[in-house]
Amino acid sequence: MENFTFYSPTFFVFGKDEEKKTGEYVKKFGGSRVLIHYGGGSAVKSGLLDRVKDSLNEAGLSCIELGGVKPNPRSGLVYEGIRICREEKVDFILAVGGGSVIDSAKAIAAGTLYDGDFWEFYQGKPVEKALPIGTVLTIAAAGSEGSPNSVITNEEGMFKRGASGDALRPKFSIMNPALTQTLPAYQTACGITDIMAHLFERYFTNTPEVETTDRMIEGLLLAMIHEGPRAVKEPENYEARANIMWAGMMAHNNICGVGREQDWGSHNIEHELSALYDCAHGAGLAVVFPAWMKYVYKHDVSRFAQLACRVWGCQMDFNNPENTALAGIEALKNFLKGIGMPGSLKELGVKEEDIPQLAHCACHGDARTGTLGNFVKLTEKDISEIFRLMAV
Amino acid sequence: MENFTFYSPTFFVFGKDEEKKTGEYVKKFGGSRVLIHYGGGSAVKSGLLDRVKDSLNEAGLSCIELGGVKPNPRSGLVYEGIRICREEKVDFILAVGGGSVIDSAKAIAAGTLYDGDFWEFYQGKPVEKALPIGTVLTIAAAGSEGSPNSVITNEEGMFKRGASGDALRPKFSIMNPALTQTLPAYQTACGITDIMAHLFERYFTNTPEVETTDRMIEGLLLAMIHEGPRAVKEPENYEARANIMWAGMMAHNNICGVGREQDWGSHNIEHELSALYDCAHGAGLAVVFPAWMKYVYKHDVSRFAQLACRVWGCQMDFNNPENTALAGIEALKNFLKGIGMPGSLKELGVKEEDIPQLAHCACHGDARTGTLGNFVKLTEKDISEIFRLMAV
Repeated sequence: MENFTFYSPTFFVFGKDEEKKTGEYVKKFGGSRVLIHYGGGSAVKSGLLDRVKDSLNEAGLSCIELGGVKPNPRSGLVYEGIRICREEKVDFILAVGGGSVIDSAKAIAAGTLYDGDFWEFYQGKPVEKALPIGTVLTIAAAGSEGSPNSVITNEEGMFKRGASGDALRPKFSIMNPALTQTLPAYQTACGITDIMAHLFERYFTNTPEVETTDRMIEGLLLAMIHEGPRAVKEPENYEARANIMWAGMMAHNNICGVGREQDWGSHNIEHELSALYDCAHGAGLAVVFPAWMKYVYKHDVSRFAQLACRVWGCQMDFNNPENTALAGIEALKNFLKGIGMPGSLKELGVKEEDIPQLAHCACHGDARTGTLGNFVKLTEKDISEIFRLMAV
Repeated sequence: MENFTFYSPTFFVFGKDEEKKTGEYVKKFGGSRVLIHYGGGSAVKSGLLDRVKDSLNEAGLSCIELGGVKPNPRSGLVYEGIRICREEKVDFILAVGGGSVIDSAKAIAAGTLYDGDFWEFYQGKPVEKALPIGTVLTIAAAGSEGSPNSVITNEEGMFKRGASGDALRPKFSIMNPALTQTLPAYQTACGITDIMAHLFERYFTNTPEVETTDRMIEGLLLAMIHEGPRAVKEPENYEARANIMWAGMMAHNNICGVGREQDWGSHNIEHELSALYDCAHGAGLAVVFPAWMKYVYKHDVSRFAQLACRVWGCQMDFNNPENTALAGIEALKNFLKGIGMPGSLKELGVKEEDIPQLAHCACHGDARTGTLGNFVKLTEKDISEIFRLMAV
């Protein structure tokens, strides 16, 4: 195991109706002039935004609103948010929404306290200071409610890049699974895929002897395999929603990723797809991950066989462990298909002729250094071949 | 799943040589006048205490020492620590040791800021304020390095009781697995048993539909089953020590216990044994837990069968699930025997004629309300019968 530090100071408030306490928690964590950041219509239509505002008013807090965050959130709105926060002397940002809204809030929080261009954080500069953030989560997927990460798309060039720093960890996150019961099946499945992908990125490692975190990751994957299809079939199943929501946080606050090299090649490959085609991140990952697995599994057949046996219930083929490794990848593909995720670039609407540009941008676009991933370091040529595997 | 809050703001610093940074972290978390709290000879003999003091000196911090914490830590030393902290205007307590040292430090931290008797916290009063604490962990067992809990034995009456409150969570914990490599096999096994017991206390619940935390608990148990015997057989195996140490923290910081009723009957029964006989807590748990399981398994055969299949690799007997449940309990007994733990009261040195007093004290001693546990509410009569099961 490698040396590490782990710090997850977010105060999690989980369960039915807890969003009514939002004002109380903003106050507890020092907010007085609040920017409420949110997305499109659903938080408004469902009445959630009003409930949250009522709660802030009851707590005697002044607030301004900035809505309009889109999936795959954009830099334009971040610049606007930074301007508002400075002009209005905002001292707390409250994100009401899913990962895109929270990521946009994090970018604004870091940018407001930084003299330079906030985009530098998304080119690799670590975030050391940010306005405090709180969240009211409405989608179980990105794990941004407990993570130190944010992903933004720069409209100049359509680069989708990530920033990181403990200063970006929310002070509190209110997680009411009932708020996710209205999510359509497709978006629910995208969230499940994203959560599982966060676990795979940590699972595929070259660090030996990481049994404890291996077992945690496998446990969370098993929970998703049980609860994911239930939530897709029965959107109003509170218990399935609750189990997925808590798993989604743990999949990405890094408690099961510490002390081990992580990969993140597939996420970065997917970011090229959702930057260019504006597809759902989870749907993109459903196409990228099995292809990536097929391309790299020979690098460590035993690790792939372990996943297949422990998580997918495959029988170990002791004469030919490769068969077991491949059976595990096939099981993942079938699972994703079963919850309604796409299985090829074609289903995503991606054109094959864009592959060279996608592969080039993944390796040589803004802030990239020529390779992606750690489990196997992928060159532009490798990534092209992985894209070709997705075409079929 | 039940509503819950979860807050674990401890900064964990994990890995080789990290204790050299102790001074830096005390400073980061606001300490200037430090009480170093420790146990007997091993921290002194190994040179650890000197390394820690060097690090505090380098950081320009003033410190006083209070050693002498014993396993099953006592109230007497706590009162002395409180007096010293007040007289010397201590603003930070650094615990260098295992769970007993950290628990004693927590009691001092809470007591110093409280006008009344610190023991009230151990009779049920929630801890809301405490001096900041940091830890340098030397034993993987109690999980106190990441928990909001402390257990102290009151020398007046020999009551062993617990206190709780987020104020007791350490600001930072330095976890160097190499520091545990010198621990004798018996103490190592006691630690493993304690960690597994913390997981069982959370696993046996009446809350339905808790798949995510079930799977996390099972994953950590599987890791302990793999790493525990390795650490007992090869004390210097850093990787086994590291996996156990990180699992020990997660087993008790409550990340896998949220949203579900927990039991804690077995822990409280054991506390009577270690209060009266001063046996190692882990050794006591090794005797108590299988007996408790045999006494209560009929309350939820399916949960016991699930544990047996998922964790102990038993085959499900679909015609008679009770057989599977019992096979799981037998597997635990064999595992504990295999790592050198006692299996009966006799091996612990407990006299059968003390059973009535132990059972009475467990239910009606200081701050007790007549029953123990939640999975099954145990009366004095139940506890007597559980003790009888331990005699054989």
